[in-house]
Amino acid sequence: MKVLVIGAAGMVGRKLVAALLSTGRVGEQAISSLALADVVAPTAPEGTIAVTTSVVDLSRPEAATGLIADRPDLIFHLAAIVSGEAEADFEKGYSINLDGTRHLLETIRLAGQSQPYRPRLVFTSSIAVFGEPLPAVIGDTQHHTPLTSYGTQKAICELLLADYSRRGFVDGIGIRLPTIAVRPGKPNKAASGFFSGIIREPLAGQEALLPVADAVRHWFASPRAAVGFLLHAAAMDTGLLGNQRNLTMPGLAATVGEQIAALERVAGPKAVALIRRQPDEVIAGIVAGWPQAFEATRAKSLGFVGESTFDEIIRIYIEDELGH
Amino acid sequence: MKVLVIGAAGMVGRKLVAALLSTGRVGEQAISSLALADVVAPTAPEGTIAVTTSVVDLSRPEAATGLIADRPDLIFHLAAIVSGEAEADFEKGYSINLDGTRHLLETIRLAGQSQPYRPRLVFTSSIAVFGEPLPAVIGDTQHHTPLTSYGTQKAICELLLADYSRRGFVDGIGIRLPTIAVRPGKPNKAASGFFSGIIREPLAGQEALLPVADAVRHWFASPRAAVGFLLHAAAMDTGLLGNQRNLTMPGLAATVGEQIAALERVAGPKAVALIRRQPDEVIAGIVAGWPQAFEATRAKSLGFVGESTFDEIIRIYIEDELGH
Repeated sequence: MKVLVIGAAGMVGRKLVAALLSTGRVGEQAISSLALADVVAPTAPEGTIAVTTSVVDLSRPEAATGLIADRPDLIFHLAAIVSGEAEADFEKGYSINLDGTRHLLETIRLAGQSQPYRPRLVFTSSIAVFGEPLPAVIGDTQHHTPLTSYGTQKAICELLLADYSRRGFVDGIGIRLPTIAVRPGKPNKAASGFFSGIIREPLAGQEALLPVADAVRHWFASPRAAVGFLLHAAAMDTGLLGNQRNLTMPGLAATVGEQIAALERVAGPKAVALIRRQPDEVIAGIVAGWPQAFEATRAKSLGFVGESTFDEIIRIYIEDELGH
Repeated sequence: MKVLVIGAAGMVGRKLVAALLSTGRVGEQAISSLALADVVAPTAPEGTIAVTTSVVDLSRPEAATGLIADRPDLIFHLAAIVSGEAEADFEKGYSINLDGTRHLLETIRLAGQSQPYRPRLVFTSSIAVFGEPLPAVIGDTQHHTPLTSYGTQKAICELLLADYSRRGFVDGIGIRLPTIAVRPGKPNKAASGFFSGIIREPLAGQEALLPVADAVRHWFASPRAAVGFLLHAAAMDTGLLGNQRNLTMPGLAATVGEQIAALERVAGPKAVALIRRQPDEVIAGIVAGWPQAFEATRAKSLGFVGESTFDEIIRIYIEDELGH
């Protein structure tokens, strides 16, 4: 099968590509070729599978034409302008996150008019589709009232994905990822950055700032779980989805206090001592509007599996990123 | 205030225009001019207010530019390709129902960049945004999983309206209308046509076909109530909406059997005898997927008022359409 990964240079994209190349298959099917696309040049890992790379600007309709020219059987669409940037640059966010996805869907639909074509399309959505009113635990039938342009764009793409799938133009599945932790790499300025920072920095012997209260509760999965969701979505029987093509992924609800307790269990009190509380009203205000926990009943019943303790999430980071 | 009605030639549009001209005001504010637009030429009623008309194709971006040139303070956007046609012609439905609305929003946003402009925009959405799973009574936080392209397009426009309002580009409010009954005029081929037909035809001494079982339950408001919703949405304090700019309108849940009982109370057994049961599997199948009843708690608390008995809906038809 021919596989295309759009957004292959991102953190999750790179881990997905590594997983695809390590097994050489998706479910039962062997991968014959792998095309990697992103706004910056993705790295083409060495291996036995033919890998091609391309640099694309998804806001241009012809970008999708180029990506689909080879008629990939399976498409992972992970590319997006992130939340903060989509809020700061209204036009850029709509152009990439909405128009880019719509160009892709339209190009697939039109390709199917000359000869039958209905690829599996795995789309990464976000829990940012949810907004007020926000129950403590969000069920699978909660409405979408996003409080950001990013969340709006993701919610719209979910609707398009479902309609294009219902009409038979594509075999789509949208997965709403939890906040991914522990993110590898340097601290960044994302409002959610501290959720990873308070684990990652202490494990590296460095101080980490904690801008919110210990009682703040949020919804997590590891990068390894995120790749698992994508691979399961790629191989599963989508007939089980009916017309509901978008799913909240399972995750783990944990408070900051529970994160810190897990860090102490895994790495000891010396690590915890490196967390410095420095309340930040702005970040606390942003985070207060975020979802805290989900039922994710449907996704679990369809075989998607997340972590069940934050200890596990920390151990995965140590295994996958620190090599021990 | 300058008022623009897009979709002024439709059934609800014509009644809205008549109501605007009869009072000459919206809430406390006097109407200074009224612009009517539709895909076919709207009739310009005589009156003391300056009325202009235009024929527009909303799928063309420049159509919105022309409509907004005069900077209307209040815009009613009722125009849409109806459900059946949007399902039959995929491209036309997206072009008018999605792109047309987005062009309008974008034109308003860009107009606000040269000098401040933030009109009230009243958008008619639909209960077609709801799909499976469908509880017997649908609450205000039920998710949108439309089962038609029309419902998908309306759900997407709701998301856009909310985001453009949140960003301050427009003062939007979306209202999800119940099925409007009793519709005046000739029988049409819409799957929902019989809901009006079984009342309208007998009142005119004509036979009406009933294609579904008496137990079928659905959600109704009169054309008069629909105009009332639009006028209330135009004048209300939208600050009360917060970031949830779209509302399910109140309505009346009634079974076909309850409709017929109401007809008997209002017009006697002779009228009821004109209803001929002719089961139609196709129509019954379509209608089985439709919502049956809503809570509409939020809209009611915000002052929107529908009917409470089907007798009332029939009496309104007799008063407004049969002139007695």
